[in-house]
Amino acid sequence: MSSNYRNFRNNVPWLILFLQAVFLVFFYFLSSDGDTDQLTRYPAFQDVNHMVIFGLGFFLTFLKRYGFSSTGFNLLIIALGVQCFVLIEGLLVFLLLSEDEGSLTRITKATMSMTAVVISTGAVLGKANPVQLILMTIVEIIVFRMSRWINTTFLEVPDHIGMMHVHLFGAYFGLAVSSRFSEPSPRSEKNMSTPKSDLLSMLGTLFLWVFWPSFNSVLVVEEKSKAICNTYFALAVSAVTAFVLSVLTTKDGKFRMTHIHSAVLAGGVAIGYTASSIEYPWIAMILGLLASVITILGSYCIQWCFNPALKIHDTSGVHFIFGLPGVLGALAQVILFLINNWSTLPSLGYLVTICIGAFCLTIGAALITGLITGFILNLKLFKTTPVSKYFDDQFYWEFPHLAVGF
Amino acid sequence: MSSNYRNFRNNVPWLILFLQAVFLVFFYFLSSDGDTDQLTRYPAFQDVNHMVIFGLGFFLTFLKRYGFSSTGFNLLIIALGVQCFVLIEGLLVFLLLSEDEGSLTRITKATMSMTAVVISTGAVLGKANPVQLILMTIVEIIVFRMSRWINTTFLEVPDHIGMMHVHLFGAYFGLAVSSRFSEPSPRSEKNMSTPKSDLLSMLGTLFLWVFWPSFNSVLVVEEKSKAICNTYFALAVSAVTAFVLSVLTTKDGKFRMTHIHSAVLAGGVAIGYTASSIEYPWIAMILGLLASVITILGSYCIQWCFNPALKIHDTSGVHFIFGLPGVLGALAQVILFLINNWSTLPSLGYLVTICIGAFCLTIGAALITGLITGFILNLKLFKTTPVSKYFDDQFYWEFPHLAVGF
Amino acid sequence: MSSNYRNFRNNVPWLILFLQAVFLVFFYFLSSDGDTDQLTRYPAFQDVNHMVIFGLGFFLTFLKRYGFSSTGFNLLIIALGVQCFVLIEGLLVFLLLSEDEGSLTRITKATMSMTAVVISTGAVLGKANPVQLILMTIVEIIVFRMSRWINTTFLEVPDHIGMMHVHLFGAYFGLAVSSRFSEPSPRSEKNMSTPKSDLLSMLGTLFLWVFWPSFNSVLVVEEKSKAICNTYFALAVSAVTAFVLSVLTTKDGKFRMTHIHSAVLAGGVAIGYTASSIEYPWIAMILGLLASVITILGSYCIQWCFNPALKIHDTSGVHFIFGLPGVLGALAQVILFLINNWSTLPSLGYLVTICIGAFCLTIGAALITGLITGFILNLKLFKTTPVSKYFDDQFYWEFPHLAVGF
Repeated sequence: MSSNYRNFRNNVPWLILFLQAVFLVFFYFLSSDGDTDQLTRYPAFQDVNHMVIFGLGFFLTFLKRYGFSSTGFNLLIIALGVQCFVLIEGLLVFLLLSEDEGSLTRITKATMSMTAVVISTGAVLGKANPVQLILMTIVEIIVFRMSRWINTTFLEVPDHIGMMHVHLFGAYFGLAVSSRFSEPSPRSEKNMSTPKSDLLSMLGTLFLWVFWPSFNSVLVVEEKSKAICNTYFALAVSAVTAFVLSVLTTKDGKFRMTHIHSAVLAGGVAIGYTASSIEYPWIAMILGLLASVITILGSYCIQWCFNPALKIHDTSGVHFIFGLPGVLGALAQVILFLINNWSTLPSLGYLVTICIGAFCLTIGAALITGLITGFILNLKLFKTTPVSKYFDDQFYWEFPHLAVGF
Repeated sequence: MSSNYRNFRNNVPWLILFLQAVFLVFFYFLSSDGDTDQLTRYPAFQDVNHMVIFGLGFFLTFLKRYGFSSTGFNLLIIALGVQCFVLIEGLLVFLLLSEDEGSLTRITKATMSMTAVVISTGAVLGKANPVQLILMTIVEIIVFRMSRWINTTFLEVPDHIGMMHVHLFGAYFGLAVSSRFSEPSPRSEKNMSTPKSDLLSMLGTLFLWVFWPSFNSVLVVEEKSKAICNTYFALAVSAVTAFVLSVLTTKDGKFRMTHIHSAVLAGGVAIGYTASSIEYPWIAMILGLLASVITILGSYCIQWCFNPALKIHDTSGVHFIFGLPGVLGALAQVILFLINNWSTLPSLGYLVTICIGAFCLTIGAALITGLITGFILNLKLFKTTPVSKYFDDQFYWEFPHLAVGF
Repeated sequence: MSSNYRNFRNNVPWLILFLQAVFLVFFYFLSSDGDTDQLTRYPAFQDVNHMVIFGLGFFLTFLKRYGFSSTGFNLLIIALGVQCFVLIEGLLVFLLLSEDEGSLTRITKATMSMTAVVISTGAVLGKANPVQLILMTIVEIIVFRMSRWINTTFLEVPDHIGMMHVHLFGAYFGLAVSSRFSEPSPRSEKNMSTPKSDLLSMLGTLFLWVFWPSFNSVLVVEEKSKAICNTYFALAVSAVTAFVLSVLTTKDGKFRMTHIHSAVLAGGVAIGYTASSIEYPWIAMILGLLASVITILGSYCIQWCFNPALKIHDTSGVHFIFGLPGVLGALAQVILFLINNWSTLPSLGYLVTICIGAFCLTIGAALITGLITGFILNLKLFKTTPVSKYFDDQFYWEFPHLAVGF
């Protein structure tokens, strides 16, 4: 196998280089002209960029021996995916004669969309090799853009709400891809964390927690300030609930670090759709509480029932960290919509159908294309990583260091 | 003890949940309406939020085996404390018909006020259990808000200066609480740092250093730019002086990491009161120099004379990191005020009395309520952590990890 | 030696203190008056400050036993260097009656200029003692300011382009200084990284990567948004190319962490001069690609041919990380200038000469003053660190910790 894989690896860089060359050629034809006066977007872009590159990168460093790959491959796929997305936007402007929003807005949206891909990589973390990750990135970013395009064009979903499907899409695409990968050996000790790696992951989590209000308010045009406050309150209640439930569900009433990592962000995910429309903070807070509950209870259900039954191995638990709170958020959106617009009964059914349609479309597209992608990625052609080499930096990275202090 | 504590622990989550439910109910009645047009506040809020959640969280990770608790409990008490503070503000608006500043400003002030609580937790770091921390948070945030309210209403202290009492209040409240806790065994090795934990703490310190000018300028209305520059210069001279004094006071002329952690921020604390009123940077620089001197010399005096005499154990040294520079800052405020307004002699005495009154009120309130809180927290009811389990994550957190690489 | 050095060390703080006192006295005479209305500069200043203090500080923590010194001394020299630079600006305003830009702008430019010094310290990392670092800082910041002054005054280089010479200047000054230091023993194991220190260095690198667009656009007045986008694309392509070349140039087709650290930033350095003038992103992308190629290929050439021949030891590889991409950027500037202004043939030669003149002046000044500085720093007076104590925190810092978990 080893020499076989080595031969394969020697071809890998040419694939990436080819991709980069294609991007370069397309960029030659598809540049944006609308570059003026976008500087007000820059701080929001910085926040989102920070979240994706740094926050999510370190969020995924919880595995004992996979810190290099978590942060490194994260940077690689974002650098590729953002270029790909910017090209798609350029192509859409060219083909559909839609409005050109300028480069900075494109990059901002590209970075936000890449969240979906990074979430998906969380599900196959340590199992997919770089080529598989890159192909997954390209496919997913295209499909997600298409799904958003259908949402905004045919279902008339506002753009800032369509973008919030990013967590749902990422989680279910990742799960579908992951279902086609071999499961790791249950006795493997590499699939664990150390206190140090957990602390680094906490570092990433705290970054995400602090920047989440920016993420939920970037594309909101009106009521930005409300979106920020609601997101903050939802996150705060999520954090509190995470600690409460962690004590209640573990032996001896101790806290479990993975619960904290997973659930403190649940409120931010769940409130994505409704952050700018919720009138009172207490509604946001209840949503944050429910999101945290669903994440921690979901983590037990999914790990003991759902995953073994479907033979899915979800390394970072993206199903309950991003998937379930996303579903809850979509549900909350419909319910709040129903409550607020009860008087205008006739058109109500139509509008609710739209909401639910967008939700089903997103999940459906994610699952179907995810399954297909997972199937393709596991063709012999791509030399999947052998199970014994799962979760191991040394399979991809040189380790000239002495074996001290890891 | 152990089973006893386990039973107690099983009640803990219900307490937090009850608190969260009470907050939710109050939020139902006490929402802010003035949400419009506050977006200019957002970057400042982000900076402060970053400082408190991330900077102070990692600033406190210097203990060898207490990294999970330092960062985790920090997040928990901030999530609770901010909600509590926002409610108090709402109550004040409702009861006193004072002006409603809007949610974002409330959260910003809440986060700044939480600095006091986080500083206090520094004094009892590793000794207080989560319930004690939470109760302390609620009491302290209420008392600090009341003390600020008296300052601004009766003593007519401007709001941005009243807020700067946060370091003083936090330090002396924490010390008073800490004096009621049992002292750790002097032979304990858990009460130490490792090079890795010191480096993580340095990470937090650098974050605080970079963001401190934001902290000192958030509430300043005029002369914001001056407040930023003065704070920066004070911090810079503090940092230089910290290195100088560290070499002078240690054997062999080596640097000591704890000196650097403590003293580089002293200038920022000391200049809080006067950042926007100091005319020339050299005054700010001298203040930074004095603050650093007082911190490092104070650290020796306090650790060898004061603490043993009063039987206080101050884990993070908040007395000399935040307390003494705060006292220096308050003193400098009076002296600079005297120098600048020498001509208007008649009303001078009155104004100086006000300054000193606000200072005494803050310290007095901190010490008295701190002592009472410390006394209550050490009732048998709260099952204080046994001394042998001080400074140990494993008492509160699950450790499924192998015992490698800690 | 040891007692000898101890005596010396006892004099060190007085030197720093003397320097700080001189700064204080000068600040008394040379304050800025133009402090009003600069708040729009604050976010950019924060970004740059973050990069230099935090990003570069952790970027340099890759050595196994040198984390304290990397982050600590970085803070020390920045705190001193910024004060020195602000004074020089004040002196220039006073002597040349040039325009006073106000304190915040001065500090921002000071922090940007300090990048040169931090880069230079990278070349002598682990070899120079704090006194040598401080003297180097003072000399370098003065020489760099003079070189910029000549560039802007006599060669009429715009200020935002003159500032971009910071990487070139820093790298070649550092190399020249480094050439006068003794080479470390080739068998030394301290001159290595551990997986943990590499991960911390990755943390710093990601910070730099995220903030680089701010660095390249701070001083740009028009086309700021274009500068941001071009820098982002150049960085993205650099990152991708770094991964590609790392696989191509290592045995077994594995990634090497030092390649990633070095080359992901190359695009940002190379595009510094032309970020705001490049019209199309594909040009920026090609520049990013070339920069990454030159960095990784350069790292082999330099480490195997150039450095041994000239007996230079470059700890962090600043020659290929900042030097070569800087040269490429300067070259690209000339070429792009030639292409764009082909029509205005007569004055073209003159303008190109100016460009090349500024480049040669910068490199020349860096090399000559660097050599002289290196020569002075290695006088017996400064008690150079013995080669056996290179790369060792314990030579400068107290280590009260138990020898666990380093």
